[in-house]
Amino acid sequence: MKLGFIGLGNLGTPIAENLVLNTKQLYVFNRTAAKAKDLVEKGAVLCKSIEELASLCDIVFSIVSDDAALKQITSGNEGIAANLKTRGIHVSISTILPATAKELSALHRQHNNHYLASPVMGRPEAARTGKLNFLVSGEQHAIETIKPLLQQAGAMGVWEFGNEPTAANAAKLCSNFLIISAIEAMAEGIQLAKKSGVDVTRWMNMLTQTLFNAPVYTNYGNILLKEAYQPPGFSLRLGLKDVNLVLEQASSVAAKMPFGKVLQRQLKDSMEKELAEYDWTAIALALK
Amino acid sequence: MKLGFIGLGNLGTPIAENLVLNTKQLYVFNRTAAKAKDLVEKGAVLCKSIEELASLCDIVFSIVSDDAALKQITSGNEGIAANLKTRGIHVSISTILPATAKELSALHRQHNNHYLASPVMGRPEAARTGKLNFLVSGEQHAIETIKPLLQQAGAMGVWEFGNEPTAANAAKLCSNFLIISAIEAMAEGIQLAKKSGVDVTRWMNMLTQTLFNAPVYTNYGNILLKEAYQPPGFSLRLGLKDVNLVLEQASSVAAKMPFGKVLQRQLKDSMEKELAEYDWTAIALALK
Repeated sequence: MKLGFIGLGNLGTPIAENLVLNTKQLYVFNRTAAKAKDLVEKGAVLCKSIEELASLCDIVFSIVSDDAALKQITSGNEGIAANLKTRGIHVSISTILPATAKELSALHRQHNNHYLASPVMGRPEAARTGKLNFLVSGEQHAIETIKPLLQQAGAMGVWEFGNEPTAANAAKLCSNFLIISAIEAMAEGIQLAKKSGVDVTRWMNMLTQTLFNAPVYTNYGNILLKEAYQPPGFSLRLGLKDVNLVLEQASSVAAKMPFGKVLQRQLKDSMEKELAEYDWTAIALALK
Repeated sequence: MKLGFIGLGNLGTPIAENLVLNTKQLYVFNRTAAKAKDLVEKGAVLCKSIEELASLCDIVFSIVSDDAALKQITSGNEGIAANLKTRGIHVSISTILPATAKELSALHRQHNNHYLASPVMGRPEAARTGKLNFLVSGEQHAIETIKPLLQQAGAMGVWEFGNEPTAANAAKLCSNFLIISAIEAMAEGIQLAKKSGVDVTRWMNMLTQTLFNAPVYTNYGNILLKEAYQPPGFSLRLGLKDVNLVLEQASSVAAKMPFGKVLQRQLKDSMEKELAEYDWTAIALALK
């Protein structure tokens, strides 16, 4: 099976590196070709276009920044769907709307190949240490085919959400919502504790040894206590994009999300404070 | 040392039971004397008044429902402060405002005895299984004296927050804020996931095995998934009381709490839905 990879961003790059190291072969494409340099040195083959890459591969991974970018690389005569082999699989890692997954899944079906929703949880350091968690949904046979490849891409866990390509994307959006909610809650709590004369390191230490003994509180709590908002593991700009998707999805299914609305407002305020390329924990600065 | 205990509510009762079982002696008082019946059968001595109890004891534990009740039992000629022995210690477990702790601490000092802030984290089942966490702050010698007693009262952990009696209370309020924030975030996430066709049990299972692998998500997540809002481990009415205190404290130190305001609104909405005596996880029903 020949593998392709499109999208060498902050998270895409270490995932592609895992694949090239573990499979010894990978076709890659990136809009900015220079970003593929290191990968090519490690053995990847750089393609000139998505069309070329898709026509060479049985399985194409993609991780791009938003719904529009994913539609753009997937659709049209030069896109993945039209050029991927019959029964080929497009493993779509991007965090997108369920509706986009549905639309692109139908498009792939027209071309007799598969779209597999495979959004991922984990920051770049998790990719480098093989601690990613992939949420997958779509055609069962396609899931079975790509599971060992996701391990090679850096998965600690692969979590199946059934046959609907929309489900993994919805679950991913809800997961990101829980993460940024925990961050905002910690930011508000740390600020209140600090202003009330509490030793906040001691306080967070107590919480993360008891009721809140989980990586989301330990890791993000540490960043918040140190105010170490750069370099970003996940940018505030992308965080706002995800919260916008959460609220769009909530609106489409008539779900109330009062916390979601606060998060959107705080992230927008942070963007206005020129924090777009800071880590999304910098949402804490909107409280200042 | 003679020990006293005031306040046999939902959480006070199992703590007092631990003390009477482990120390073989305990003077108790409760506004509703009938609630002391089981404790007396286990060996506790029922007092007729707070004045009587305080004058008999070296150390008095109190856990009452709010700031007003605590002030009432502590102040005045018939209160704890005026009747407790010289160098006696009032171990105040209630969740209250830091300002109240400061005021009562000064009152105790006038009577040459000690006020020790000792709010507790844990629901009644945690008390029964010795898994409580006490946050303590106040005079260091008093802390050292009561630490072994807190173990006997059901502590898994005793967390020290320095000499200011206000600090433990502020830390406790911030902790409760983080808990109810996690509950609200899960409630919103679960609703969105469910309405989007996600198998929510599978989704929460993934989270609590990865980034959110902590009791606050496992335990409260389970209640939310089962919608098991009765009987209450901690009532929604008391949850609103605590969030009101959080916002009062935030206002007094000029801390912004947009999540806090949402929580207050959602809890008030839930109260209007007659959910006051449901578990505070029933905040989820305000989304319906």
